[in-house]
Amino acid sequence: MNERINRPPEVPMETQPVTLVNVFRVPAGESEQFLQRWKDNARAMVGQPGFIRLRMLRSLVDHAEMRFINVAEWASGSDLDRGYENPDWQESVQHMLGDPDLHVTAQPRVYEVALELHPGDSP
Amino acid sequence: MNERINRPPEVPMETQPVTLVNVFRVPAGESEQFLQRWKDNARAMVGQPGFIRLRMLRSLVDHAEMRFINVAEWASGSDLDRGYENPDWQESVQHMLGDPDLHVTAQPRVYEVALELHPGDSP
Repeated sequence: MNERINRPPEVPMETQPVTLVNVFRVPAGESEQFLQRWKDNARAMVGQPGFIRLRMLRSLVDHAEMRFINVAEWASGSDLDRGYENPDWQESVQHMLGDPDLHVTAQPRVYEVALELHPGDSP
Repeated sequence: MNERINRPPEVPMETQPVTLVNVFRVPAGESEQFLQRWKDNARAMVGQPGFIRLRMLRSLVDHAEMRFINVAEWASGSDLDRGYENPDWQESVQHMLGDPDLHVTAQPRVYEVALELHPGDSP
């Protein structure tokens, strides 16, 4: 697995809400194994300060290049940074990276919310 | 603009919740104009049956290839299909596509939620 999973690019929004979008390229036959491993990783995240919500999205198309996308909402860029520095997370990710049965690459990117709409809103 | 914005790939989840992830490649200098136009489009979506939430994410990195990502949650694949067939949406998108000042490509993809976690959950 690409080590980029281990560290998102620099987050310039120290005190503002940020959303991490991590695109995972996963061979089709390794999807279930990847997801199970990733759940183990996620356990280290859900108790971190500033963690709001994550959704791991799985493509509905078999041949998808971007097979999984993790969308994780954090209260601030600083909280996201601290979450990634958490030793439990680091250890869990290293364990997954070292698995010879997984051939996954990750591209984490950090975003701000430019627009959020719910039913009935007036954009 | 690429016409793929106009229609996501086939959605096989007729009755299950789906999430549309639309990756927009937008020249840096056209970001504000694109976002304003896209808000006009979104107006046609928020009143559709089965629409739950959308968030337009903007990259915090200037040189980002995936500058904007729209993450839209729908109650079912059928609702998403109907939303895209809505004449107001079609007209709004055609208007944006015809704008010679915008040079945007879109890659819509449909996902299911494989995992959703909130603070304190046990994955």
